[in-house]
Amino acid sequence: MTQKQLHLNAFLMDSGHHEASWRLPDSDPGAALDVQHYVRLAQIAEAAKFDSIFLADGSVAMGTGEFRASGQFEPLTILTAIAGATERIGLIATASTTYNEPYALARRLASVDHVSKGRAGWNIVTSATHEEAANFSLAERPLQATRYERADEFLTVAKKLWDSWGDGHFLGDKEGGRWGDPAQLRAIDHVGTHFRVAGPLNVPRPVQGYPLLVQAGASEQGKAFAAKHAEAIFVAHQTLEQGQAFYADIKARVAAEGRNPDHVLVLPGLVPILGATEAEATVMAQELDDLRIPEYGLRQLATFLDIDAATIDLDAPLPREVVEQEVREGFDSRARLVIDLAHRENLTVRQLLGRLGGGRGHNVVIGTPEQIADQMETWFTKGAADGFNVMGASLPSGLEAFVETVVPILRERGLFRSEYSGTTLRENYGLPRPVNQFDVEVANA
Amino acid sequence: MTQKQLHLNAFLMDSGHHEASWRLPDSDPGAALDVQHYVRLAQIAEAAKFDSIFLADGSVAMGTGEFRASGQFEPLTILTAIAGATERIGLIATASTTYNEPYALARRLASVDHVSKGRAGWNIVTSATHEEAANFSLAERPLQATRYERADEFLTVAKKLWDSWGDGHFLGDKEGGRWGDPAQLRAIDHVGTHFRVAGPLNVPRPVQGYPLLVQAGASEQGKAFAAKHAEAIFVAHQTLEQGQAFYADIKARVAAEGRNPDHVLVLPGLVPILGATEAEATVMAQELDDLRIPEYGLRQLATFLDIDAATIDLDAPLPREVVEQEVREGFDSRARLVIDLAHRENLTVRQLLGRLGGGRGHNVVIGTPEQIADQMETWFTKGAADGFNVMGASLPSGLEAFVETVVPILRERGLFRSEYSGTTLRENYGLPRPVNQFDVEVANA
Ligand SMILES: Cc1cc2nc3c(=O)[nH]c(=O)nc-3n(C[C@H](O)[C@H](O)[C@H](O)COP(=O)(O)O)c2cc1C
Ligand SMILES: Cc1cc2nc3c(=O)[nH]c(=O)nc-3n(C[C@H](O)[C@H](O)[C@H](O)COP(=O)(O)O)c2cc1C
Repeated sequence: MTQKQLHLNAFLMDSGHHEASWRLPDSDPGAALDVQHYVRLAQIAEAAKFDSIFLADGSVAMGTGEFRASGQFEPLTILTAIAGATERIGLIATASTTYNEPYALARRLASVDHVSKGRAGWNIVTSATHEEAANFSLAERPLQATRYERADEFLTVAKKLWDSWGDGHFLGDKEGGRWGDPAQLRAIDHVGTHFRVAGPLNVPRPVQGYPLLVQAGASEQGKAFAAKHAEAIFVAHQTLEQGQAFYADIKARVAAEGRNPDHVLVLPGLVPILGATEAEATVMAQELDDLRIPEYGLRQLATFLDIDAATIDLDAPLPREVVEQEVREGFDSRARLVIDLAHRENLTVRQLLGRLGGGRGHNVVIGTPEQIADQMETWFTKGAADGFNVMGASLPSGLEAFVETVVPILRERGLFRSEYSGTTLRENYGLPRPVNQFDVEVANA
Repeated sequence: MTQKQLHLNAFLMDSGHHEASWRLPDSDPGAALDVQHYVRLAQIAEAAKFDSIFLADGSVAMGTGEFRASGQFEPLTILTAIAGATERIGLIATASTTYNEPYALARRLASVDHVSKGRAGWNIVTSATHEEAANFSLAERPLQATRYERADEFLTVAKKLWDSWGDGHFLGDKEGGRWGDPAQLRAIDHVGTHFRVAGPLNVPRPVQGYPLLVQAGASEQGKAFAAKHAEAIFVAHQTLEQGQAFYADIKARVAAEGRNPDHVLVLPGLVPILGATEAEATVMAQELDDLRIPEYGLRQLATFLDIDAATIDLDAPLPREVVEQEVREGFDSRARLVIDLAHRENLTVRQLLGRLGGGRGHNVVIGTPEQIADQMETWFTKGAADGFNVMGASLPSGLEAFVETVVPILRERGLFRSEYSGTTLRENYGLPRPVNQFDVEVANA
């Protein structure tokens, strides 16, 4: 029997996940504006046989753009460019159910899945911020409950649309003059609370049936949604215990939905800061930290926690009101994680910013390749992870270091593949191609 | 002084513009589902130094899919794939102002403009059909006046967004810790009838300032919109006189808007059916026509004219009520052109379908390369065209034949370029890069 393997996703972000990475001597500060940078990162990850790459997204410019890249190209456009320059690696992009229409987004995702020959994945987000609402003609951001209700109906419609152009529709029968089989092109006539969509979709069913469905919402509502729809879950945890608790909880929820827990992969974030020795790694971490501008981090933290930056002392712990506040409507569950971290480790705000600057709440691991591989193996074998969302603190260098030093150790230990076995993203993750709901209906009729 | 040159756009469509093209012995019936087909067509057009390629679009599956391709991949996805496989040719895609949000679409177009290094164009449509409305949660299609009002405000917002991230924003100043210049990243705070958009956009101003703005609405409202916003106009005309009348009218409207008429190019459609002799061309046209299925054409025509197919006799002229009907709200101006054609030439419905099957109302020219070049020269020199929208009846063969036989004649006559002189789509068309409205404000302050 072959040993169970872990999965690796490379979370790509301009010059790196550390907020000051663009200031490193070797960094290209304009990386965010260069699609070839993303293509090269994907090629590095593919050469190392990663399952997939991932692009986060939001429909808002980041801050004033003074201290880090103000934006990023639209992610499905970047993925399409990467698709033409790679062959096997999966391509996951973020898109919002709150600010898209199901017909248009289902079609774009299906198009990318075809262009990439079955490598598209969709990180489903509901877009919690005021700033995004203000770019889409809304006076207020929609309530969390409304957002997830819409997201759920959005998925129902998208799946119907992907199934509407059946796998057997195209005939290409020149002689008989039959391009397609009308019985395989089906109106969906969806009528719901948020959407009325007639269908059928005007592109064929995706190569993968549906693109891989990914989710990253850690709130109650987010977890309920993930249990119902997600096939891979990105999470941010600081400790093994947190990771185990989440893992057990989400797999139980998946089972309660009548789904197979093995078909939902949990991928915690990991920010590796590598050195040949622990001391070298610490120097690297320090170099990055010294390039941070704490006033900027404070402004960002204040927005994130919805508090006033002027009331915060960098060299004191977070004010008690902040630590003790109730979880509020629309309050990002990652904000809670940040507050808990500061409280648990009794950090000053300056120290907290140092911890966040590297990974925005994700697990930053500073150490040797062996130490990082050890931690990954522990999380993997002790029920906290099915794989990892690898977040290079600097890019490409952080990803290159991981690929060159950590991946070989994982391979030696039999934990990670040396070759791709399949050709689609679902095959990389060992996930089945979904059955077409209309074919099931016909079979049952 | 160099002679004025005409411009060539290649309008790409699966196996060709003739509805039966997919049934030709050499055609790939699955061309619509193969992005490499589109890449190859673009490469053929680029090798011939065409200004641009163009993809039409609608958010609806075509008919039942029985007699021709039911759909096409989302066009900006196809253009991004083409961008990676070409260098100089412009890339124009259709997108709707009725079923998109300005923030999302402006961002995607800007992204494609950057990925292609300044080669993106946008064919702006307002989506007139019931079928599209039914895919976007609307019970009724919006009224024409409402659609164009929204389109006008959409363009205002999109231009503000493209200008919001100023050309000088990116600094990349590692030493000073200044990634960008906040003064060049500007909120737009647009508040209008259809949209409220805060901005700024989260991608840099397009390489071209704005993507090339293209339009194809031939109704009164469409022409008013084109006069205000368009830089290239696609049209369908049957006769030189129609072409001249439209050309004179639209250039006058452009001047009345205070714009330079030379900066708005008129590109009538041309469906060349080529043969070494006229007789050979006629055989080719006949071969295509024999592959048509008239009952299917009738069904399509009936939908297009909003009449009942069952009341139509294939071997009689269109019923008098149809010919005499008033132009109705929402009635496509191309429908009127079709009715006028049938009436003017006293065609039976079967004959009319023969004429439409080739080019859906566009000018089908059957003849030798010289004859086609003559007609192009006449239209160009006699004030009916600044260039042509070349619509291969079959693809790639129809485009290849045009490139190999007609383009050399145009070159000999000094009417068409032998080399690209610029690198962007605007440079191909000899159009200026728009000034940033916020820079003008600052200069005037
Ligand atoms: C690894 C990771 C990546 C994420 N990427 C995005 C993203 O690209 N866009 C976004 O709006 N939210 C992103 N999120 C946030 C979540 O989708 C979610 O909005 C957030 O955790 C709040 O949870 P809730 O929406 O369930 O309240 C990400 C979260 C994680 C852990
Ligand atoms: C060459 C050409 C291409 C066109 N492409 C599209 C298209 O891709 N999508 C679309 O909805 N309409 C397309 N149209 C139709 C026009 O945009 C417009 O909707 C139609 O002429 C009706 O005019 P109106 O909208 O001004 O009433 C095209 C028209 C022409 C002449």
